[in-house]
Amino acid sequence: MGELKIQVMNDELIEIITKKIKDIIEKNDKFKMNELLNSYYPIDVAEVIDEFEDSEIINFYALVDDKEISDILEQADEDLQVRMIDLIDNYRAIFIFSHMSNDEVVDILGNLPINKRKTLFKLMKESELRTIQSLLGYDEDTAGGIMSTEYIALYEDFSVEEALRKIKKIGPRSEVIEVLFILNRKRQLIGIADLRDILIADDDVKLIDICEKNLITVAPETDQESVALLVSKYDLKVIPVISKKNSLLGIVTVDDVIDVIVEENTEDILHMAGVSEGETINGSIGGSIKKRIPWLCVNLITAFLAAITVSMFESTIEQVVALAAAMPIVTGMGGNAGSQTLSLTIRHIALGELSLKNDWKIVFKEICIGLIHGLVIGLIAGSILYIKYGNIYLGIIMMIAMTVNLIIAGITGYLVPLILKAAKVDPALASSIFVTAITDIFGFMIFLGLAKMFISYLI
Amino acid sequence: MGELKIQVMNDELIEIITKKIKDIIEKNDKFKMNELLNSYYPIDVAEVIDEFEDSEIINFYALVDDKEISDILEQADEDLQVRMIDLIDNYRAIFIFSHMSNDEVVDILGNLPINKRKTLFKLMKESELRTIQSLLGYDEDTAGGIMSTEYIALYEDFSVEEALRKIKKIGPRSEVIEVLFILNRKRQLIGIADLRDILIADDDVKLIDICEKNLITVAPETDQESVALLVSKYDLKVIPVISKKNSLLGIVTVDDVIDVIVEENTEDILHMAGVSEGETINGSIGGSIKKRIPWLCVNLITAFLAAITVSMFESTIEQVVALAAAMPIVTGMGGNAGSQTLSLTIRHIALGELSLKNDWKIVFKEICIGLIHGLVIGLIAGSILYIKYGNIYLGIIMMIAMTVNLIIAGITGYLVPLILKAAKVDPALASSIFVTAITDIFGFMIFLGLAKMFISYLI
Repeated sequence: MGELKIQVMNDELIEIITKKIKDIIEKNDKFKMNELLNSYYPIDVAEVIDEFEDSEIINFYALVDDKEISDILEQADEDLQVRMIDLIDNYRAIFIFSHMSNDEVVDILGNLPINKRKTLFKLMKESELRTIQSLLGYDEDTAGGIMSTEYIALYEDFSVEEALRKIKKIGPRSEVIEVLFILNRKRQLIGIADLRDILIADDDVKLIDICEKNLITVAPETDQESVALLVSKYDLKVIPVISKKNSLLGIVTVDDVIDVIVEENTEDILHMAGVSEGETINGSIGGSIKKRIPWLCVNLITAFLAAITVSMFESTIEQVVALAAAMPIVTGMGGNAGSQTLSLTIRHIALGELSLKNDWKIVFKEICIGLIHGLVIGLIAGSILYIKYGNIYLGIIMMIAMTVNLIIAGITGYLVPLILKAAKVDPALASSIFVTAITDIFGFMIFLGLAKMFISYLI
Repeated sequence: MGELKIQVMNDELIEIITKKIKDIIEKNDKFKMNELLNSYYPIDVAEVIDEFEDSEIINFYALVDDKEISDILEQADEDLQVRMIDLIDNYRAIFIFSHMSNDEVVDILGNLPINKRKTLFKLMKESELRTIQSLLGYDEDTAGGIMSTEYIALYEDFSVEEALRKIKKIGPRSEVIEVLFILNRKRQLIGIADLRDILIADDDVKLIDICEKNLITVAPETDQESVALLVSKYDLKVIPVISKKNSLLGIVTVDDVIDVIVEENTEDILHMAGVSEGETINGSIGGSIKKRIPWLCVNLITAFLAAITVSMFESTIEQVVALAAAMPIVTGMGGNAGSQTLSLTIRHIALGELSLKNDWKIVFKEICIGLIHGLVIGLIAGSILYIKYGNIYLGIIMMIAMTVNLIIAGITGYLVPLILKAAKVDPALASSIFVTAITDIFGFMIFLGLAKMFISYLI
């Protein structure tokens, strides 16, 4: 025992497990293999398998119990899951699925090629097939897509004694046992009961009298991000998913919610910079290029728009070439100030605290901040230019251009993601590229435009 | 019942609750007030209280039970917690604390001014005080800082029957009951038991025989981010915090982990753009300026470095003014490509998948991507310049400069956050400002430097 030092230990751990497994495969020792797997976590074993050749995986399967394979399969990433299923006998796959919870099976089936999926469907039991097909009907980013159907539901008129008997029976197959779902005889969800309350209540108390009726629930179509917000805001252990007629369709547990939060945060950070989801830092070069180049092309267009803006003032720059050196200061500061507001806005949207109608007061606030920042930063930058080039007008033009551009930066950093959101586009999606484009174009235009107007003072 | 539409309903809901509470305060109706509070979630009530005047909060307190106040206090944000405690009688505060879990009390006490905290300490019971003071000893970003001491610990030689009796007794005061902690008679943690297994086991089975002994634990000093990574990677419901001698100090539950993940992600997104943590989009203007201006000043320095680079080539620009229009294309694309790599790197670091020693293969990969992107984007940009200005050499220079700058972008986007991390600085901290500075300076230098070298072909 002792603390697991994740980062440092992981690489070594993987190496150790790899060596042990390969040894056992060679010796063809079924008993040793299952003993070994019992002493490591399935997620670590999955990382090992990921590096195996197809033939090694097949040899590995031959020595491992269905239950162990199902544990590893649950923890494997999508690509590995598809590969693992592909290498397994179809009949055995069905047995392995029977050890997994329905939502996991659905996730795996959803990623398989359609023909493989149909083949497996044909081998499944009628009753399982119905649940799985109904779960497959929901979009994977919704409550229906991430919910599980392994929960304990009890009728409201059950006594505590009956309830405890049921819990002992169903408990082992259920994802959550601390929270029990109370139904009326029409099978509508009317409350939830805490196992603690059941444990301390007298044997003949009815469940209806100890359950909590003030519930937070979601519909199967609810976006997974909203589900995560509710669970995290109200510190829920589990949230029920119900139909329009109040029947209980499934539950979303807090560990599913953690996965959602991590996934959505990754999306936000990558999308802001124009990286498509699904790219990993150690994936293939071709894959990375395919995912990044579209946004670089968008950026190329905005960069040319900025260049065209500058080229409109070529004659002005020809007369006062110091402008060429000074102009990136205006646009650089605008880009950074815009990113500051942008990152705050995107974060508040992700936490469910902002929408477009929310508050024009914030726009006003960003204008004030841009004004004050612009005057301060503009004064410093203008003074330095004055000292360097000995021309007070160049300094004043810098100060005005900086102020106006930082105001524009504040407004766009706030509005761009909100407009994207209102248009039902991910607010983080390349918003940084758009904000920078706006501050670049306006920055050049204002600074060089003012210089052109007052060119006689600058020469 | 029915789905709670968070975003849209929240503002209206807050208004409704505010009105109802104010009405009841006016009527001075204690019964109605507690009835009302029972039908809303404490976190929503906390949002209402946040908008109250001090005098209104005092009137509110007079009508509300200690338990209700403790629920609201737990859900309030830090500022409101301090304000609420400040407005409450010290003796009553102790009673209110007795309804809260120790880790919550510690969080609140940690935020109070030192004098207020000491006054409250004097009123506390000796035994409580000891736990709380030992918890206060841990840094709030560590496992010790976020752990709770409300768990169920049972001795290994207990029978299932004894265990169930204990669980019924302690369960209601415990944060988690699905997982029970098994100690030996030296009070060292030797395993955890799942309540499911206890429920289905025979009465006389000993706990030692049904508990899981292969444990993942953390030390109290473990960084909260590492704790969150472990819980999310291994899908744990709870993780034990143990001392060097293996005694159980506390537990971190999955809902604490969600808060950590949300907090750390917010930090990452804001830090990348140079926004200090703790700033909110609707905070005061003065507060925002104080938090953002330091990074704008850092950015001003890097912007001047870029400007100085350009100014070194003023005579070159004077001869071919088209260079001034074309040069932002090189730096703009470099900045964007750098941000793409940067955001991927930061995300992988946050997920615990990267460290500096990790892989020079990735640097090589980023160089290849930069090379290919640079050639493609450079060819497009160069061709457009050639068409516009009719000079093939200008196009070739653009292509070379773009290629070199995108390679630099890839390398810095990968290395800057890893170097910050190795230096024990948050890898997201203003990394975007540094990467942009490097791509700006090198972009200008390479493009204008090449132009200067081949100036005779450009005129």
